Amino acid sequence: MFSSYSQYLDNAVNEIAKLPGIGKRTALRLALHLLKEDEVNVQSFVDAIANLKSKICYCKICHNISDTDICTICQQPKRDTTTICVVQDIRDIIAIENTAQFTGLYHVLGGIISPVDGIGPNQLTLESLFKRVKEEHINEVILALPATVEGDTTNFYIHKNIKEQVKTITTIARGIGIGEELEFTDEVTLGRSLLSRTDFDTSYSRRM
Amino acid sequence: MFSSYSQYLDNAVNEIAKLPGIGKRTALRLALHLLKEDEVNVQSFVDAIANLKSKICYCKICHNISDTDICTICQQPKRDTTTICVVQDIRDIIAIENTAQFTGLYHVLGGIISPVDGIGPNQLTLESLFKRVKEEHINEVILALPATVEGDTTNFYIHKNIKEQVKTITTIARGIGIGEELEFTDEVTLGRSLLSRTDFDTSYSRRM
Repeated sequence: MFSSYSQYLDNAVNEIAKLPGIGKRTALRLALHLLKEDEVNVQSFVDAIANLKSKICYCKICHNISDTDICTICQQPKRDTTTICVVQDIRDIIAIENTAQFTGLYHVLGGIISPVDGIGPNQLTLESLFKRVKEEHINEVILALPATVEGDTTNFYIHKNIKEQVKTITTIARGIGIGEELEFTDEVTLGRSLLSRTDFDTSYSRRM
Repeated sequence: MFSSYSQYLDNAVNEIAKLPGIGKRTALRLALHLLKEDEVNVQSFVDAIANLKSKICYCKICHNISDTDICTICQQPKRDTTTICVVQDIRDIIAIENTAQFTGLYHVLGGIISPVDGIGPNQLTLESLFKRVKEEHINEVILALPATVEGDTTNFYIHKNIKEQVKTITTIARGIGIGEELEFTDEVTLGRSLLSRTDFDTSYSRRM
């Protein structure tokens, strides 16, 4: 525990240091910064964090973070409601939305299956996904989970449970990033990108 | 400004990103971490920050952060009250106390003179230092400010104002750190350490 000459400072430093990736030294720097700030600014910081926990809810359809029962994406009338993209959390939605390449709906799992971290299928919103697939008319489910062992496990689990209901189940393409050099690409990615090679015309028409 | 699908999340991210050294991406990661935490934990985080601003006061003698009018260091009866070590902020006190080499009192300036950042002598606790030196019996003032242009400026300013009252005014030694290699030391430090060379016996007896 951090210990200085003020119990209040110690408390604040210890609380800040509980955040991921923030050590005692950084926590002290941040606490001293807040201490120097105006009362009003610190109050709005504190209010923002308190509201974060008490006022945010999760979309009843896709489990995205939302201020209302149904999130702004699920509410958009022009979205293609027959396509669901399965992601881990809201950061992935922000990343995908920034590409402007996807017009369907999302399903936020809230994590991926990881026995090491004690996360099984029941801790995720998988049942709700299977229910959506059963009850709604879904043409395609896109699995956009991380390219890790845990991501693959989750992909297989989902595939097993929805393959009867959904015609098309896809995963986002693995391969060499645009602008990346071959010599710096790891062997597994390079190997996979050779196996999953695409037709020349198709590949270039997509990039145009 | 960061914009996602929840105004409350946006607010929290924008507030967290105002902290020094924290960008939007890290702020989002921290906000999502807090969102996943239990209500109780978030509340104790929020309370710690709020108390930080509303309950902490500053020692009336040395201006150190304190929970009481006089800080725990100034209250210690065994301290040498005739020696004052002038530092920039509480982090320097923590660092010096960790060495267990100093038994005197401190004086926290709250910064150093830096015209570029708009910090003049009046923004610091310099007048209070001059008053202490005048009214109390002080044998030595140790200047432990950063070895920068701003630190030197502040050192000169203090020296000019207290040299009539205090017999001994010292600065902490500049030189090569213990365990440091000569080839990686910058020229200015190496040059200064040659000019301020110390007697062999004195140097080694201090390190024993």
